Amino acid sequence: MSNQITLYQHGTLALLVPGLLKGTITLGQLLKHGDTGIGTGEGLDGELIILDGKPYHVHATGDVTLAPDSFKMPFANAHFARYTPLAELENVDEADLNKQMVSLSKAQNTFFSIEIHGTFSSMQTRAAVKSNPPYKTLAETAENQSVFTRKQIEGTLIGYYSPQLFEGATVGGFHHHFISDDHKFGGHVLDFHLDKGNVSYQLFDTFEQHLPVNDKQYMQHDFSKDDIENSIHQSE
Amino acid sequence: MSNQITLYQHGTLALLVPGLLKGTITLGQLLKHGDTGIGTGEGLDGELIILDGKPYHVHATGDVTLAPDSFKMPFANAHFARYTPLAELENVDEADLNKQMVSLSKAQNTFFSIEIHGTFSSMQTRAAVKSNPPYKTLAETAENQSVFTRKQIEGTLIGYYSPQLFEGATVGGFHHHFISDDHKFGGHVLDFHLDKGNVSYQLFDTFEQHLPVNDKQYMQHDFSKDDIENSIHQSE
Repeated sequence: MSNQITLYQHGTLALLVPGLLKGTITLGQLLKHGDTGIGTGEGLDGELIILDGKPYHVHATGDVTLAPDSFKMPFANAHFARYTPLAELENVDEADLNKQMVSLSKAQNTFFSIEIHGTFSSMQTRAAVKSNPPYKTLAETAENQSVFTRKQIEGTLIGYYSPQLFEGATVGGFHHHFISDDHKFGGHVLDFHLDKGNVSYQLFDTFEQHLPVNDKQYMQHDFSKDDIENSIHQSE
Repeated sequence: MSNQITLYQHGTLALLVPGLLKGTITLGQLLKHGDTGIGTGEGLDGELIILDGKPYHVHATGDVTLAPDSFKMPFANAHFARYTPLAELENVDEADLNKQMVSLSKAQNTFFSIEIHGTFSSMQTRAAVKSNPPYKTLAETAENQSVFTRKQIEGTLIGYYSPQLFEGATVGGFHHHFISDDHKFGGHVLDFHLDKGNVSYQLFDTFEQHLPVNDKQYMQHDFSKDDIENSIHQSE
């Protein structure tokens, strides 16, 4: 039971802001904490979405491959899926859907995940372009990301909601990734319009925050000078 | 191994601010997550310090009793002690000691605990006065707390350090509780001067945040109107 109510996170959104982008957890290690999740590769190498234990890596080229267990990440979330159906929705855009999710789940003060499977009349995603040391800041990476759009696409959106109190460690509010049913299109969700889909959700009572304490650069960094909140809002 | 690198927290500092003071974890449940810790009772009923598995409850009267397993708390921290000696210190006040701990541990970007056993030339503590529903806000409680001072007292200080990023969920920086060797004096530490003592520390790579998702009042509360940061700074 207990592993179904825990959202695991390695790293923080805040460490991406100044470009602490070294991979500090492997996919193999992450998968011990869940069969479902999201993340990004070392150097902000694209976008990861894990569905049914399968880790789809959306590259900046738009290509999607399965990532190996050795794939390293500076930031990732994972949990063991046990979603409960919440609603069947039609003709709804992202802002409206996010609002409905908070109101239907009554869970704005805890962490939860949503899964939407359906037909999206439009889906806009992005994939970050990998940088090498010295890594770029999150703002610099955001200036040079690949943006993809598809019309009438079927697929699955995995999203995490975090209470505003945890903004900085997480994205306060929603953070969605997407993968198409044919596994050829996906990424970090920028915007969408859902034609018709089933929405389910999973509530967590525990947020397990794991920090990269063996990474000297992380441990020595002075975060007090980073404008974390603004940078997250502009980039996410 | 893994349970020695996890700091468990039930509730958040933020929920104390508007007075969400219902006890949502029992001491018996908390002790499954550690033999060492700090907390407060339902309604901000005094201060708790757990040492070697023994939960000392410092009442607003100044009396210290052992709390029963049924004792309920809105907020608490616990971990399994495995401290490493860090320094022998003499003639040092709280601000200086906190600064030295951050610098010696090199751990400002993760959670850690410190334990100090020694002789304190002065120790000032407080214990909150329990309120009943409708509970007082944290600021109102702080206006009416009991403050105690002892000179030349031997005892143990248990402190937790949280990175600034987690302020709101925790007290950013240090949060210390104290219990004397004779178990007759203690509380939430306001100020101290250490005459001579041994300081040890324990680093955590995991912060396990448990939220009271079964408490309707918590789940329905609108935190956006609470001035959490200022209230914590003024009260803690």
